[in-house]
Amino acid sequence: MEQLPTYDDVVRAHERIASHAHRTPVLTSRLTDAELGLSLYFKCENLQRMGAFKFRGAFNALSLFSAEQRRAGVVAYSSGNHAQAVALSAALLGIPATIVMPRDAPAAKLAATKGYGASVVPYDRYTEDREAIGRAVAKERGLTLVPPYDHPHVMAGQGTAAKELFEETGPLDALFVPLGGGGLLSGSLLSAAALAPSCEVYGVEPEAGDDGRRSLRSGAIVHIDTPQTIADGAQTQHLGAHTFPVIRDRVTDIVTATDAQLIDCMRQLATRMKIIAEPTGCLGLAAARDLADRYRGGRVGVIISGGNVDMDRFVALLAR
Amino acid sequence: MEQLPTYDDVVRAHERIASHAHRTPVLTSRLTDAELGLSLYFKCENLQRMGAFKFRGAFNALSLFSAEQRRAGVVAYSSGNHAQAVALSAALLGIPATIVMPRDAPAAKLAATKGYGASVVPYDRYTEDREAIGRAVAKERGLTLVPPYDHPHVMAGQGTAAKELFEETGPLDALFVPLGGGGLLSGSLLSAAALAPSCEVYGVEPEAGDDGRRSLRSGAIVHIDTPQTIADGAQTQHLGAHTFPVIRDRVTDIVTATDAQLIDCMRQLATRMKIIAEPTGCLGLAAARDLADRYRGGRVGVIISGGNVDMDRFVALLAR
Repeated sequence: MEQLPTYDDVVRAHERIASHAHRTPVLTSRLTDAELGLSLYFKCENLQRMGAFKFRGAFNALSLFSAEQRRAGVVAYSSGNHAQAVALSAALLGIPATIVMPRDAPAAKLAATKGYGASVVPYDRYTEDREAIGRAVAKERGLTLVPPYDHPHVMAGQGTAAKELFEETGPLDALFVPLGGGGLLSGSLLSAAALAPSCEVYGVEPEAGDDGRRSLRSGAIVHIDTPQTIADGAQTQHLGAHTFPVIRDRVTDIVTATDAQLIDCMRQLATRMKIIAEPTGCLGLAAARDLADRYRGGRVGVIISGGNVDMDRFVALLAR
Repeated sequence: MEQLPTYDDVVRAHERIASHAHRTPVLTSRLTDAELGLSLYFKCENLQRMGAFKFRGAFNALSLFSAEQRRAGVVAYSSGNHAQAVALSAALLGIPATIVMPRDAPAAKLAATKGYGASVVPYDRYTEDREAIGRAVAKERGLTLVPPYDHPHVMAGQGTAAKELFEETGPLDALFVPLGGGGLLSGSLLSAAALAPSCEVYGVEPEAGDDGRRSLRSGAIVHIDTPQTIADGAQTQHLGAHTFPVIRDRVTDIVTATDAQLIDCMRQLATRMKIIAEPTGCLGLAAARDLADRYRGGRVGVIISGGNVDMDRFVALLAR
């Protein structure tokens, strides 16, 4: 295993991505604050390039490729935001990109990935193993594999979102971070430890896929079947070998949110703050509402991790 | 008639509102730029306090009240964003507020207005004249009336949005501004003339209510019946005595957009940029798309004026 990243790695990642990533706005809602009895600061990574924080980690990882790696190219497997993030980062850095995507991925996502100039290797998500295909393609073609979360350079890049948040707000009493494979949470923990050591940091995962919480309780990485949840960005089956130790050693707790809570938060963010968040992006707010009493009168950060939800699906989820 | 405002008034308004209004973000969309062949800069007043630029003008106008006016209080007539803007500004400044609102206004808007501590005077929008009621209430109770657009202090306040945009982007080739009564457009023209003299500035109104365009063509303020359009923020019947001369002397042109175009722009802003805009807020983008060829390769600003659309209505408009 490669060495775990430190806050210094986050700082260096921030220098690398600064002129390419958006410094996303931190939004507030007076009404929501009044309702919950605390001050919330929303770090809006749904307004990041390609619509999610994933751009930060992918761009940082690709920036660290050697000249030889750049010439040969990058491969990534993902049906979601990581694929877009690698494809866009590769296009910006002039690196050839190959993305292993399910044959039945939404046409819009396939088109967007190809639109960034990436080659797509299709696979059958019911019978084939994307990680095995990714490793095979990497080996055959001499490409470098960038995994979606379990890599020190990816983790360091994701930590820049919380770094920007703390730089803007100063210390906070608590921070709520969506949790899938742990890239965003582990990076956020590094930034919190350096910039706001007394801030309590929570990972928030879908109730249907609480492998992170169970891993924390048991002290070892728990594997689960792909969970059934609308939070498609957090349908991971297990934390990573690099993300887990950082989370285990530093996180305050891991809590969960139901799909119904996520839909309610999507509506709240759209109505009050005029922003579109994808279901996964609402995990932090759902937990902040649950635990508001614990931080009454305090200052609480929430990372909205992404906004990539198909508009027909958004409309269907919010229709009543 | 009071004196017309100048750019100096915009600068002073900006100083007054700076610590209360949000400096809203300027967002971009790489995909939209590629599609249209130009660089678009979206000034997101849908992310302003109470969800629209109206807060700027209302807060500036109320800040300029004398001690006596503050004690007596303010009155405003509006079923929409101006009511919320006056109610919130009055609450922040400790000024009693009375809002003349239609008896059948949405319950949420009534509740929000009362939530800011304002008294509501209901009227029947089919049989009563809200302007007359506003003036009568002002006279009877010794209150100061703040009109929704036709006032130099309101116009100067609205100009601060374009001022911030130009300060962030530098000079632009064109700027597209939603047009109802002309408060936002006239203020934007003052800022453009001072900060980007070669920038061509367009007012954009609903096709069903093109009184502004007809006024510009004829050289005199044209009055129309309340137009049937989903752009409820631009359902004005005429430009103002103060806004018209500024617009007549400085605007490049006034163009229109259909309701269908506005719905398409709402979908585009939600899908690509993850933001909710109300129909009126989409007028600028609709026109920028229409006139993109004229500014090919150029830098174009669009003011998204507000985001206050009921979520059930948003869902209904975008369902297909």
